[in-house]
Amino acid sequence: MKARVHITLKPGVLDPQGKAIHHALDSLGFSGVDDVRQGKYIELDLQETDREKARADVEDMCRKLLANTVIERFSIDLD
Amino acid sequence: MKARVHITLKPGVLDPQGKAIHHALDSLGFSGVDDVRQGKYIELDLQETDREKARADVEDMCRKLLANTVIERFSIDLD
Repeated sequence: MKARVHITLKPGVLDPQGKAIHHALDSLGFSGVDDVRQGKYIELDLQETDREKARADVEDMCRKLLANTVIERFSIDLD
Repeated sequence: MKARVHITLKPGVLDPQGKAIHHALDSLGFSGVDDVRQGKYIELDLQETDREKARADVEDMCRKLLANTVIERFSIDLD
């Protein structure tokens, strides 16, 4: 089973990477951009075939390793 | 209009970040993972309201700045 994890900064947390991208887009002449936020995207191939078990496992991975839950939030999509 | 861009390494391109995550998950006891690939996720707030125009703009941004199309591919979702 494939799991797709999105990890994004919580609203209100400063995003210097997003700001840098925004600035670079401005420099290239893309003026119609109001805001840019950058996050991480992780694809996991899992041996687990039970959806509930797989989701619980991936949530556990996010809390223990993939996301910093103080400043980031995560969402999980399963195939 | 909001655009969500996923940038991932093309199949076959070595992904050291993904390998590092895979190894760290193994160390933490998550043994049921076959493969990990890490990509980037970028959210853009656009002033453009026309979907076709917005998609063309974001494709242009990806080709010129956001993605390295030699080794990466990108996909765009519009709200």
